Amino acid sequence: MYIDTLLSEADWLITEEDYHPEKNQFYETLFTLANGYVGARGSLEQGSQTGSPGTYFAGVYDPTPVFFTELANAPNWLNVKIVANNESIELEKGRILEYKRTLDMKKGLLTQIFRWEGAKGQITRFEDYRLVHLNYKHVALLKGVIVPENYDGPFVVKSGLNGYVFNTGVIEQLLIKHFKLTEYEDREAEGIYLEMKSRLSGISVGEASKLKLSVPSERSVEIDVDKITEVLTFEAKKGQAYEFEKYVTFYTSRDVEDVKFHTLKELNTRVDQGSEVLLREHVSAWEQKWLDVDVKIHGDEVAQRSLRFNIFHLIQSANEDDDRVSIPAKALHGEGYRGHIFWDTEIFMLPFFIYTNPRAARSLLMYRYHNLDAARENARIQGYKGAQFPWESADTGLETTPKELGNPLTGETVRIWTGEEEHHIVADVAYAVDHYYVATGDEQFLLKYGAEILLETARFWASRVQYDDRKKAYVIKKVIGPDEFHEHVDNNIYTNYMAKWNISKALEYIDRLKQKHTDSWDKLKKKIVLSSREIREWETIANNLYLPYDEKTKLYEEFEGYFKLKEIDISGVDSTGLEKIVKDTKWIKQADVVMLHYLLGDYFDQETKKVNFHYYKRWTTHSSSLSPSIYAIMGIEVGNYRDVYQDFIRSTRIDLDDEQGNTSIGIHAASLGGAWQVAINGFAGMRIKNGMLSFKPWLPEKWEKLEFKVKWWGETLNVAITHETVELKLETTDPTRTVEVNIGQKVWRIKGGETCVISVCSQ
Amino acid sequence: MYIDTLLSEADWLITEEDYHPEKNQFYETLFTLANGYVGARGSLEQGSQTGSPGTYFAGVYDPTPVFFTELANAPNWLNVKIVANNESIELEKGRILEYKRTLDMKKGLLTQIFRWEGAKGQITRFEDYRLVHLNYKHVALLKGVIVPENYDGPFVVKSGLNGYVFNTGVIEQLLIKHFKLTEYEDREAEGIYLEMKSRLSGISVGEASKLKLSVPSERSVEIDVDKITEVLTFEAKKGQAYEFEKYVTFYTSRDVEDVKFHTLKELNTRVDQGSEVLLREHVSAWEQKWLDVDVKIHGDEVAQRSLRFNIFHLIQSANEDDDRVSIPAKALHGEGYRGHIFWDTEIFMLPFFIYTNPRAARSLLMYRYHNLDAARENARIQGYKGAQFPWESADTGLETTPKELGNPLTGETVRIWTGEEEHHIVADVAYAVDHYYVATGDEQFLLKYGAEILLETARFWASRVQYDDRKKAYVIKKVIGPDEFHEHVDNNIYTNYMAKWNISKALEYIDRLKQKHTDSWDKLKKKIVLSSREIREWETIANNLYLPYDEKTKLYEEFEGYFKLKEIDISGVDSTGLEKIVKDTKWIKQADVVMLHYLLGDYFDQETKKVNFHYYKRWTTHSSSLSPSIYAIMGIEVGNYRDVYQDFIRSTRIDLDDEQGNTSIGIHAASLGGAWQVAINGFAGMRIKNGMLSFKPWLPEKWEKLEFKVKWWGETLNVAITHETVELKLETTDPTRTVEVNIGQKVWRIKGGETCVISVCSQ
Repeated sequence: MYIDTLLSEADWLITEEDYHPEKNQFYETLFTLANGYVGARGSLEQGSQTGSPGTYFAGVYDPTPVFFTELANAPNWLNVKIVANNESIELEKGRILEYKRTLDMKKGLLTQIFRWEGAKGQITRFEDYRLVHLNYKHVALLKGVIVPENYDGPFVVKSGLNGYVFNTGVIEQLLIKHFKLTEYEDREAEGIYLEMKSRLSGISVGEASKLKLSVPSERSVEIDVDKITEVLTFEAKKGQAYEFEKYVTFYTSRDVEDVKFHTLKELNTRVDQGSEVLLREHVSAWEQKWLDVDVKIHGDEVAQRSLRFNIFHLIQSANEDDDRVSIPAKALHGEGYRGHIFWDTEIFMLPFFIYTNPRAARSLLMYRYHNLDAARENARIQGYKGAQFPWESADTGLETTPKELGNPLTGETVRIWTGEEEHHIVADVAYAVDHYYVATGDEQFLLKYGAEILLETARFWASRVQYDDRKKAYVIKKVIGPDEFHEHVDNNIYTNYMAKWNISKALEYIDRLKQKHTDSWDKLKKKIVLSSREIREWETIANNLYLPYDEKTKLYEEFEGYFKLKEIDISGVDSTGLEKIVKDTKWIKQADVVMLHYLLGDYFDQETKKVNFHYYKRWTTHSSSLSPSIYAIMGIEVGNYRDVYQDFIRSTRIDLDDEQGNTSIGIHAASLGGAWQVAINGFAGMRIKNGMLSFKPWLPEKWEKLEFKVKWWGETLNVAITHETVELKLETTDPTRTVEVNIGQKVWRIKGGETCVISVCSQ
Repeated sequence: MYIDTLLSEADWLITEEDYHPEKNQFYETLFTLANGYVGARGSLEQGSQTGSPGTYFAGVYDPTPVFFTELANAPNWLNVKIVANNESIELEKGRILEYKRTLDMKKGLLTQIFRWEGAKGQITRFEDYRLVHLNYKHVALLKGVIVPENYDGPFVVKSGLNGYVFNTGVIEQLLIKHFKLTEYEDREAEGIYLEMKSRLSGISVGEASKLKLSVPSERSVEIDVDKITEVLTFEAKKGQAYEFEKYVTFYTSRDVEDVKFHTLKELNTRVDQGSEVLLREHVSAWEQKWLDVDVKIHGDEVAQRSLRFNIFHLIQSANEDDDRVSIPAKALHGEGYRGHIFWDTEIFMLPFFIYTNPRAARSLLMYRYHNLDAARENARIQGYKGAQFPWESADTGLETTPKELGNPLTGETVRIWTGEEEHHIVADVAYAVDHYYVATGDEQFLLKYGAEILLETARFWASRVQYDDRKKAYVIKKVIGPDEFHEHVDNNIYTNYMAKWNISKALEYIDRLKQKHTDSWDKLKKKIVLSSREIREWETIANNLYLPYDEKTKLYEEFEGYFKLKEIDISGVDSTGLEKIVKDTKWIKQADVVMLHYLLGDYFDQETKKVNFHYYKRWTTHSSSLSPSIYAIMGIEVGNYRDVYQDFIRSTRIDLDDEQGNTSIGIHAASLGGAWQVAINGFAGMRIKNGMLSFKPWLPEKWEKLEFKVKWWGETLNVAITHETVELKLETTDPTRTVEVNIGQKVWRIKGGETCVISVCSQ
């Protein structure tokens, strides 16, 4: 009656239609609201017995057993509870007469509506929305109405800041309390304040809130262990609607020195502005954002809504203003992987930001640059040179992959080797740097930061390889490739190829710097103490890296010995059983050779890609959420369309359908980016060819049109694809500004002010 | 004004005079109320930011990392909070105008009084008492008054059952949540109910409570995660006193099948009885109890109150009705040592129960008997025979000593060897069985249970020793004696002597059984499959156990090589530094040789005891709370009185003065028993000589009289000792019942109805 009028059209909405307590944690992840600075899981404001509330500030890590460090669960500010005529409203008790929660992705709102009947027959209607402000990153707001439908009586509304929260430990029963109370204060007319400090990293988090009602009320404040609650009481009359607003602000000592001062000042400012203004500015910021990032699929509402879900959470996860944080594998949406950062960011998510928000992409890469010294230290520890980016990264940039995972109760343990062996991450970061530079032309970034990453990673590989006398080539032994089913393998082709690429690319940039940016080159050479001898060594290595390829079959062997592995039947084996039996078989976890053929597409001919796609598709279990998207893209590239649409839908709905069964512990952030890539790099067939954008579209039959924008060297290109045409337009009307695009082996120069419609048949 | 009138005389009271939040956990231990079935730490009913509430049900263990299993912290029922005229009463905010908490040991009550002024100048007086019922073990009660001294306004009283509680893990920051919610229910007029189940051991705990006020009020119920709260609201008038009562009941699935039914039924019954009756019966139960157990010290109020503190907590810790639990090292008072059971029970606490409440003593020994199969399994695992009682024992009787203690955050670890090496516990249990039998004459226990323990422990030792060809004797290698500073030592004299005693005592009991209880002997022999050959082997071992003794110096070497250790200066080294540097020195943690001379006093001549006392006293750091009491007793025995009084006071006040700095995590239960032993076995000089009680008193100068009772073979002997006389009287007036007592090398036969005054000078 009130909230529903706020909502956008159906293809922007994700809805929870009934209340199932056992699904609370699943919806908490789907309904997480975030702005890159803070993420708040979509827990019920009323609390529940089954939920797992989480409030995570990007970069606020604290040491923890086994996992080294983790995003620390900060005080929960969602808390709004109602006691209606002496009856506490508890969804899990009484009768739910109506219930709906809706995530409005267009406006960045989460709404809740319910009608609830208590034991005494009292019926109460509750409606509210919440937002985590997209413009004002230190602000959140909850607003709603409560209606006692068939009774009068005293109403109590309680609004808490609750620091009695924990991270889940190695096993669910081990809870870790990262924050210690340092201060709470009843600020009376100004609201309430809670400040806590992370135990070992010593980061203070201040939270303030103010509860307002549309009617006069009595105010009091309750204190519990690590919790402060503002309580407003008034006499409610049957049938009348009472409005409440909860303003929340937060700062951490990562942002400002005087946390309390800023948190309270921000609260006063926002309360003065009022909820109407805050809502309007938030919605308009989101609508503005969508203008740049939306990917419109005409003719397929499920695909449309699902894809938007992925884009929505990508936007929520990055903070372009903070270049010391990156996006964790589960984003700010849950505690899976403990807030650690993997190649997921650079290879899966980063392209979305490169083409829609290059500033955010740059920030993500700067996170790696700031951790370059730590990467050097990682290399030194493992006995290598250069910079070795860690498989799992957090605040310090040192390796944070757990060595062993186990149940401390039962004593069962599994040794984790990825931190010691999954070295391809080093080349993946270098790849991302090159990708960003090629698509943006951000010379300043390249010279000041990017080149150093490219060279130091190349240097790592030069120290990582070893010369094999029998093979007469440089080999890379004992690694884990993207396919994590096989550990301690030699010459994983993905790793070897990316290493070679990394070194070659470094040499290429050295040449360019030498020629065009002598000053920068001299400075960099001196800084990293790089000699001509070392550069010659790199050349030798790059030219002689072991990259076996069977000319006859055109097959790349994923790693040495792969072809001799067993071919067993795994139908009927469940996912947990799988990992135990696949070690000696051909079954692979995810795209590996196929991934390589995607990333370094120019290095392989069409037939090779096709043959390998066919071969490895048969053995891929897609046990990783990073897999279906890559197979969808490459399926289109090699003309194997059979499973493309299904793989696309699967990758857009990994979380919506809880496909991996663990959405409850956070979103699959890599897959968010993967889904976007299927749309853009798959269906639109976008690639970079010789430094130029190219498109080679293929649309599912029922799609009428695919529309999106990409940023390219400072320009914004509008792309609309139908089965017959590709329509291109620059956002600028300035005819001197142009973008060259390759379609159908032909170069088209798009000028500002012109619309260029290219027939796909003309290819 | 209300509560103070309840209190007993000063020498029964322990008082907290001011509120210091940082001392909350210390007082929580001192003020724990328990009845052997349940223990509730003395946390503030109002809650606090610094407290660590604990509710432990004896025997309710649940698996936990590192420590195997632990007493699981159950829902906290203390919770009573007040919102006075919209201002939440928080001791830590506002001004405390008056504050006192008092433990009344005579009546088993904890009282609290405070006057508190809030920010608005409202002054509220609060007074209450709480009890954990001594008769009705499933019942607790809180009762008090609240007075708004200078204001009118709405009063809200909240009474919760709070399952949002945790055990502290390996490090403070790791919290373990053992209980999962299974049910909560608003029973309306009947109160509220909460039921939770321990995660892995699957034990249900039901708690119910009802809040009553002296005035009509509005009632509502609040639900939070794992918490249910009854809320009563009324309009309070200035200056008026409002009475509240909180009735609490609890059952676990260890006690009854239908936990909910019993918990609610008990609640109804107790509410119907009313608080007056419950209080009266509780106080009278305590007064009755004290008649049997009080030790009166005339002329020394500090000693009197301190000693009573020890006795009070001993009484609180045992449950004579449950012979499947024993008393943990920190009793039911805190989480130190995780609720595990050590030799502390048999050697330090048990004597108190043997002589004051033999039924409770028997229950404690039955706990060991019920775990005899587990002890056999422990022996088997370690490669031995017979029964090896574990160094740390919990619910299953299997070894629960952590193998390694460390900080999972820093990775620092310390290997713990006691579980593998501190084998003397096996003989200590056997010693306790013999002690109980000799003092009670409980033939039925001996035949059905005790003998089996004695024989199976002897059998353990026979498998544990090895023959040393050079020494021509049986040796025991690689043990830890009571002095835990020295690990992996050979031939610890305490261990060797106790092992020899254990085997010899078993052989003695075999002879007695053969002669007097042929049936029992035949049964037992068959049950444990004991052959004559094995018995002959035991004889050989007992006669040839290596017990080196220097006839000239009369010194026993604590273990092989001890005399050659370094003599370093440790003045100025703090307690944590100590453990690291003492390994290669003569410094010992606690009485070891001196302990042996106490326990097996008859085996050593007076001069030997004296020489060894002098020698080892010099090197004893008393780093264990188990040490000063033994030195006090033996100081009296060997006539070295200098430190006796001080060691006695120290042992009575280990917790009162937080002498070890860790009272916050639980009471030092062994020391409770040690303090009692100093009074009885030290000052009164009580021993068993040739199966007869003997006394050899020595009183500190300022003491006028020492009075106590001891149970002996079913009789109760009243003992009153002055500097000149020992006065003995039986509790019975039946002249046919007698007890023989040895005083001054003479046997006195005490008859029912007679008072026998023996001049100490006549010795």
